[in-house]
Amino acid sequence: MITVAKERNGVGLANDVEPGIAFGSCPLPIMNHKEIVMAHGSGGKLTQQLIQKMVLPQFKNELLNPLHDGAMFSINGAKLAFSTDSFVVNPIFFPGGDIGDLAINGTVNDLAMCGARPLYLSAAFILEEGFPMPEFWRVIQSMQRAAHTAGISLVTGDTKVVDRGKGDKIFINTSGIGIIEPGVNIHPRRAEVGDKIIINGPMAVHGIAIMSVREGLEFETEIASDTAPLNGLVQAMLAAARDIHVLRDPTRGGITSTLSEIAEQAKVGIRLEESCIPISEEVKGACEILGLDPLYVANEGKLLAFVKPREADLLLSAMRAYPLGREAAIIGEVVNEHPGYVTMKTRVGGTRVVDMLSGEQLPRIC
Amino acid sequence: MITVAKERNGVGLANDVEPGIAFGSCPLPIMNHKEIVMAHGSGGKLTQQLIQKMVLPQFKNELLNPLHDGAMFSINGAKLAFSTDSFVVNPIFFPGGDIGDLAINGTVNDLAMCGARPLYLSAAFILEEGFPMPEFWRVIQSMQRAAHTAGISLVTGDTKVVDRGKGDKIFINTSGIGIIEPGVNIHPRRAEVGDKIIINGPMAVHGIAIMSVREGLEFETEIASDTAPLNGLVQAMLAAARDIHVLRDPTRGGITSTLSEIAEQAKVGIRLEESCIPISEEVKGACEILGLDPLYVANEGKLLAFVKPREADLLLSAMRAYPLGREAAIIGEVVNEHPGYVTMKTRVGGTRVVDMLSGEQLPRIC
Repeated sequence: MITVAKERNGVGLANDVEPGIAFGSCPLPIMNHKEIVMAHGSGGKLTQQLIQKMVLPQFKNELLNPLHDGAMFSINGAKLAFSTDSFVVNPIFFPGGDIGDLAINGTVNDLAMCGARPLYLSAAFILEEGFPMPEFWRVIQSMQRAAHTAGISLVTGDTKVVDRGKGDKIFINTSGIGIIEPGVNIHPRRAEVGDKIIINGPMAVHGIAIMSVREGLEFETEIASDTAPLNGLVQAMLAAARDIHVLRDPTRGGITSTLSEIAEQAKVGIRLEESCIPISEEVKGACEILGLDPLYVANEGKLLAFVKPREADLLLSAMRAYPLGREAAIIGEVVNEHPGYVTMKTRVGGTRVVDMLSGEQLPRIC
Repeated sequence: MITVAKERNGVGLANDVEPGIAFGSCPLPIMNHKEIVMAHGSGGKLTQQLIQKMVLPQFKNELLNPLHDGAMFSINGAKLAFSTDSFVVNPIFFPGGDIGDLAINGTVNDLAMCGARPLYLSAAFILEEGFPMPEFWRVIQSMQRAAHTAGISLVTGDTKVVDRGKGDKIFINTSGIGIIEPGVNIHPRRAEVGDKIIINGPMAVHGIAIMSVREGLEFETEIASDTAPLNGLVQAMLAAARDIHVLRDPTRGGITSTLSEIAEQAKVGIRLEESCIPISEEVKGACEILGLDPLYVANEGKLLAFVKPREADLLLSAMRAYPLGREAAIIGEVVNEHPGYVTMKTRVGGTRVVDMLSGEQLPRIC
């Protein structure tokens, strides 16, 4: 009844499809690449193409919004937010943080960007065989501290192990649930002409912190990642200005990719004022050395808020009173011109279009 | 102000800790291994040690229960379940399924094992550079079909890409939220002396389906994975017997590891009747060839239910009326003797202890 057949390669049936396993019924959409390239994980144009052409059409539903940091829905009259993120940052330890606090803060912030108060998190580990126990312990402890700081509970988890050379030390997925208070209504589509755009502090810090480790750069003052939980700041912001229109954290792809997505979805133009965008001298210098445009460099612990102009000053004051918003600044506004695009008034007085990241600037930044 | 230092290795600070990055404040617990080994992902003793010694003490809270398939909590009077799972199965395509439907069914089932009706799922992909687009498309379509079959919505997601050789084609995390109807109270601790233990069908199918591909075994009739969403069956079961005490899906580590965990947590003994445990002749034969004990082989689309003896027959009938429960059987009961342990009355009339899986029998089975 059972026969041992001639040895087969066995691992992966990629080009050796079993009879009875039907291929998907729809033809593969036309893509720029025949296989996954690093830039599909950049958070820029190729990520968007992958999501919009392959994933979204299959799972179309009114809650699934590719351009928001989480899904929002009601259960028993409670408005909830739900978000997920996998973390593959390399190296796993870097100045100012590690993959552990990054993973906690990442999902805490995605929930906060929905205007939600984060409540519960899950953590799922994919560990590579041979990953040293002391390093795992260090990551776990860092997650614990980050969860404590953000005031959330980690309530469920999972651990998988893959063979040596089939993973990279540790990957962490965190997913989370938060509750949205009545009256809060944050959505990229709510960006409207006249809105002021506020950032809570200097840009491009996280990306440069990671790159400086990778490239062996040393600075007089260490550039440490700005990873931080933003839920406290967001609560303070909502207390000052309940009707914030849009909140987003400009992580992968930087400020520009995030703002391009919002401009596209809300069908408005966004005009930035280069001289108003906070950036430290050290980060600026590092960007010059590395040949990076800080507008495309990943941030952590940073957010962009869109509010009606009459509420902007009040919101700015509330943010500046909070440690993570001390250097908050208005960096631009929503305009009628060039709907779907981000333009920037440069220091020298010209205006240029700043497009979404195409290609891969900084792989595995989070 | 910025100096380019001498080139450093840069990738990973494992043995090269940056000043200012403090190591965790607690000493590393004493572990059997100095690094992660495959068996830490087996779902058996080493997985349990990793979780109980390293993870749980750091995240201790009343909702975090290592021996349950998800966390349960109330928001606005609604009792919710929340669960997460990462999938790293190898090969990604196998008879009866692929990593895509496995990932959807896995979290659907974890929620169902909390007695919840699954509502919303997230999906997070870690793709390896070079992963062929047609294979990704096939996985996405399989997820779509599985989501449709289970009646759930995929509402949020994430995509990361890692360099060639730092991942393995595709890893998928799914997390999910479900709602628990009033009167349902399922928990491993509720196993009580006298309870009958029911399985919904023959064991060890998924593990053997995967192994047969890996080992190049061929059978007269193909052994196809039993991956399936169990939420419909569970709803039918709860309609017949509201007060089910325990529900668990015996995936990694097989029936024995799952039952050992329940025995341990509820401080009861569990006695299995070998002759009552359904297993197909083909799976039994394959186990003999491969030298595997089917009690430790992974299942998908299978569940174990604990109920009061007076409800067992009613529940069994309800299960048998449902396609995924057609071969349901009572396989044992909860007893006073040997609290914390699983024993089995063998076919030849003896009794033996069946312990939790130690070591790694089938790596990367889900």
